[in-house]
Amino acid sequence: MRLEIFTLPGNGEISAGDDLAAVLTRAAGDLLADGDILAISSKIVAKAEGALVEAADREQAITEQTVRVVATRTHPGGVIRIVQNRQGLVLAAAGVDSSNVPEGFVLLLPADPDASARRLCAALREATGLRLGVLVTDTAGRAWRTGQTDIAIGAAGLRVLDDLRGTDDHLGQRLGTTVIALGDEIAAAADLVKGKARRQPVAVVRGLGHLVGNEDLDDGDPADDGVRGAARLIRPAAEDMFRLGTAEAYAEGFAAGQASARTETGGR
Amino acid sequence: MRLEIFTLPGNGEISAGDDLAAVLTRAAGDLLADGDILAISSKIVAKAEGALVEAADREQAITEQTVRVVATRTHPGGVIRIVQNRQGLVLAAAGVDSSNVPEGFVLLLPADPDASARRLCAALREATGLRLGVLVTDTAGRAWRTGQTDIAIGAAGLRVLDDLRGTDDHLGQRLGTTVIALGDEIAAAADLVKGKARRQPVAVVRGLGHLVGNEDLDDGDPADDGVRGAARLIRPAAEDMFRLGTAEAYAEGFAAGQASARTETGGR
Repeated sequence: MRLEIFTLPGNGEISAGDDLAAVLTRAAGDLLADGDILAISSKIVAKAEGALVEAADREQAITEQTVRVVATRTHPGGVIRIVQNRQGLVLAAAGVDSSNVPEGFVLLLPADPDASARRLCAALREATGLRLGVLVTDTAGRAWRTGQTDIAIGAAGLRVLDDLRGTDDHLGQRLGTTVIALGDEIAAAADLVKGKARRQPVAVVRGLGHLVGNEDLDDGDPADDGVRGAARLIRPAAEDMFRLGTAEAYAEGFAAGQASARTETGGR
Repeated sequence: MRLEIFTLPGNGEISAGDDLAAVLTRAAGDLLADGDILAISSKIVAKAEGALVEAADREQAITEQTVRVVATRTHPGGVIRIVQNRQGLVLAAAGVDSSNVPEGFVLLLPADPDASARRLCAALREATGLRLGVLVTDTAGRAWRTGQTDIAIGAAGLRVLDDLRGTDDHLGQRLGTTVIALGDEIAAAADLVKGKARRQPVAVVRGLGHLVGNEDLDDGDPADDGVRGAARLIRPAAEDMFRLGTAEAYAEGFAAGQASARTETGGR
């Protein structure tokens, strides 16, 4: 089994209203093949969708994009807010981005990255006649590990989870709880060639055609569970053992413990 | 920029005492090139190092591998323990593994995966005359995201972090806090070809030769900060905003809050 990952030739600066699928089709020329997956940085998707906000309103934009505060930390330069944002993603600054953005502006994430992926995938398939998959990717920090990796925040036309629960491993035993986050692994792989400072927002991943199909292409009926595309890669807060930062959970517990003890005392 | 990732031909079952570098050199034949990175599943490294324990002692083994309990959750099949283990890694069941292991046994992680990577890298370079990098990889769950991805738990001969802080992006602005966890991205990319159930424990990643050098090859003086290899990818608990599970931190806070209120009341 062999994988190839390569960048597309530069496609210039993307601006609000640009037809990104047309830009990418031109940039790709005849480089694409059946079964290819395009990993597209959320940044150019958001730019095409006009998700720029004036930099002076950055803190307000973060607040508006926040559904739930997960953790905050004060540092010399200000306050880092790790939040669950409108897209359901747990990200620092709600995913609001100041790098590689025209001066005086910050960039929000695409409002619905799975819908963006569906539109791009449909248009790219239409333009090329090829069975393609599309991931919209972003860069995210992690608990327990230093540094950031790219993850998939939007997906269409490919399988993003590989559920190995119940499949036999080669010794006939059970693989237990393994569910592989293929979408995030593909996003991470693509980032190795895209690079942050080298201005390559699109990578083509070839060799995973077995994952490419009609998943999440249709804007119609959602799957049975109602969760589609890269939203499948989001762990619902209610199932998340790390839904709050340690300090935040401790503070909530402390307040509840104090209240409990006072009630107890008052009741005596 | 182009990346190629491919598996090595099967190398049969690995047993305690096997010379893994010799096995891999034979399997690789003339497939390797200068600058290649080998991503090797921790499982075969641990098997070669004889890290098998009787399955009856699994819970005891997890306890012995645990340095710090991060979170636990009871479910119908038992208790999931997410812990920081002796290697410093935050992993479910401390990384003790029951899949693809001879019946009646469980497998520990290599005792020092960075040291394993150094030994393998040195032996593979010696045998092939090529400048190679080695990652030892394992599969890990994440906060906030469903599914698991492969991460790097051992590294030698390559750069595992790309510190972009202070480098200019193309508009002359600052990229802010971006540090890319290259080692984990390479491990994730390799997992896409290795696959869990397809019994391919080794992938070769070609095209990242600029990351391959003499990093962490020497068993002598560690780097200035004393942290080497894939250990750089571990966020120290003291710097981790998610060093404890939400329920665990809440419970600690609750107890402290109760004690505080009672002291206060008692002091009146």
